[in-house]
Amino acid sequence: MKKHNFSAGPSILPQEVFQKSAEAVLDFNGMGLSLLEISHRSKDFVAVMDEARAIVKRLMNLGDGYEVLYLQGGASLQFLMVPFNLLRINGKAAYTDTGTWASGAIKEAKKIGEIDVVASSKAENYSFIPKDYSIGSEYDYFHCTSNNTIYGTQMKTFPNVDTSLVCDMSSDIFSRVLDFSKFDLIYAGAQKNMGPAGATLVVVKKEILGKTGRNIPSYLDYQIHIDKESMLNTPPVFAVYVSLLTLQWLEKNGGISTAEKRNEAKAKLLYDEIDRNPLFDTFCVPEDRSLMNVSFKLTDENLKEKFDNAWKSAGISGLNGHRNLGGYRASLYNALPIESVQVLTDVMMSL
Amino acid sequence: MKKHNFSAGPSILPQEVFQKSAEAVLDFNGMGLSLLEISHRSKDFVAVMDEARAIVKRLMNLGDGYEVLYLQGGASLQFLMVPFNLLRINGKAAYTDTGTWASGAIKEAKKIGEIDVVASSKAENYSFIPKDYSIGSEYDYFHCTSNNTIYGTQMKTFPNVDTSLVCDMSSDIFSRVLDFSKFDLIYAGAQKNMGPAGATLVVVKKEILGKTGRNIPSYLDYQIHIDKESMLNTPPVFAVYVSLLTLQWLEKNGGISTAEKRNEAKAKLLYDEIDRNPLFDTFCVPEDRSLMNVSFKLTDENLKEKFDNAWKSAGISGLNGHRNLGGYRASLYNALPIESVQVLTDVMMSL
Repeated sequence: MKKHNFSAGPSILPQEVFQKSAEAVLDFNGMGLSLLEISHRSKDFVAVMDEARAIVKRLMNLGDGYEVLYLQGGASLQFLMVPFNLLRINGKAAYTDTGTWASGAIKEAKKIGEIDVVASSKAENYSFIPKDYSIGSEYDYFHCTSNNTIYGTQMKTFPNVDTSLVCDMSSDIFSRVLDFSKFDLIYAGAQKNMGPAGATLVVVKKEILGKTGRNIPSYLDYQIHIDKESMLNTPPVFAVYVSLLTLQWLEKNGGISTAEKRNEAKAKLLYDEIDRNPLFDTFCVPEDRSLMNVSFKLTDENLKEKFDNAWKSAGISGLNGHRNLGGYRASLYNALPIESVQVLTDVMMSL
Repeated sequence: MKKHNFSAGPSILPQEVFQKSAEAVLDFNGMGLSLLEISHRSKDFVAVMDEARAIVKRLMNLGDGYEVLYLQGGASLQFLMVPFNLLRINGKAAYTDTGTWASGAIKEAKKIGEIDVVASSKAENYSFIPKDYSIGSEYDYFHCTSNNTIYGTQMKTFPNVDTSLVCDMSSDIFSRVLDFSKFDLIYAGAQKNMGPAGATLVVVKKEILGKTGRNIPSYLDYQIHIDKESMLNTPPVFAVYVSLLTLQWLEKNGGISTAEKRNEAKAKLLYDEIDRNPLFDTFCVPEDRSLMNVSFKLTDENLKEKFDNAWKSAGISGLNGHRNLGGYRASLYNALPIESVQVLTDVMMSL
């Protein structure tokens, strides 16, 4: 039976990406060698890294002022690298607390320097995105998290700020049309819309670097990674290759604008059913609903066993909510076909 | 034609590991899902992580006092994490400088605190392993690099030290029988003897942690990774799985002691030819020759084109020396069959 994979991450990738990745593990580029056993300095892999970095800039429509890096350590390491690279000694930065991951970013940044939490929905269980704040030039940067994977909220607009705009886009990168040139630093764990676990994308406007006065350890220093063309040390070869394949699939299928239309259609189908069906509800205010992660719950907990059996019987996987919140979560990443959402809404209708 | 892959890393892995890895990319454990699209919190992947951590302890014959972590960022991030976790505020650590990577570890540690380089062969172009030093308890730890991948030297014995013994074993881990319980912290990038690029092994004796007085950022804190069972954040799922397969292959084929015998036979075959053949020479003193990375050169540079054509025609790849040193480098990692070394020595003999 065909599986319908709603996993929040690592998550579904295009089927053709799995096929090509498996082939590369057996024989890469017809070399007679596995992708896993060739030098990262070989011309075949250098071409992969170069094209992976280039396609990100093409998809985001960014110019020469930006650099693209493929690093390791996930968004969690970026929580630390961002203040190391952008927070001046005795400077301060502004953060919004819009969920578990935003909160994690704040916790780590506070170990490095002074952080002001300028807006938070924590007291309301992260059920909305705060919008009423302004950020002045007294801050070295402003950090936000574009999408809340757990509570199912998403920033629909980004504030105009008088400092560097930094965004953790781990869970909705490449899912919608944005003016990426508005951002000074974007980071994302690859394992949602752009590849498997094990690679982290960093897109940075070069001019914001080198201003902190800090002595930054090499692996944490964006400038050193830029100088080394994202090969300071052995990169996560396989993860970068699968990310390239995923982004090539995206580009070939109409790019971000087409993906956005597909994502809007999937989200509409599911939210319409949640709104129509009195047995279901979301955890957040309608205006901030995420197009990527639809977190929802049963209004009658007695139906849990029946619903769980029904979706599992329909071939659905990865629908359980995050352990911090409970309920359900349907992640509608780029590679998820609308047919899978239809299967889910059919199950919900028949409950 | 069969390839003979002498790449220094990423490097050859067992053929059955490539087969099983490719299958898992298409369908993992018969789930109907790719290994790349399942949650790292799923029971199928948690079982992979648990077994990968357990097999390391079995192979090293280590007891409950040790913890095994699979992290990201390579040895380069460990250069930083080691002092962050072990160097007390106002303390000092001792390092030996035995090559490019040892030198890199020293450079990063100096950004964190006081480092004494107690022995170095740098002035002699890293052509030997210094042995004449002692390490007292005034040091918080002693750091060494067991094998020099570039210059082809290897520590045959390890000093008795009155402090924590820390070793970067990236390029010869699991290649020879050692008393691993003599070490307090071992780290290794996976991409030589134990898997693909993208995972970093850390083996740490728990009792050495928590003594620095530092406020350590979470991703850099071994204790936090231990508390989270190596799942602080999304681990490099595929790389950990391939590492598990590689170590299962090692265990099934007689473990480290059998691998050591195979590695000694391969190294003897190649060094005997280098010693016999006046057209070749190594870069280092005979007593410190590495069993893993045989770095060598032509004694007559005019033969370069002829030799290069001959080994390439024989299906050999990855034989070029490191860009810092030139010449040739035959890496004889666990998965390299002795038949490949025979093909190389046949080419050398016929030159």
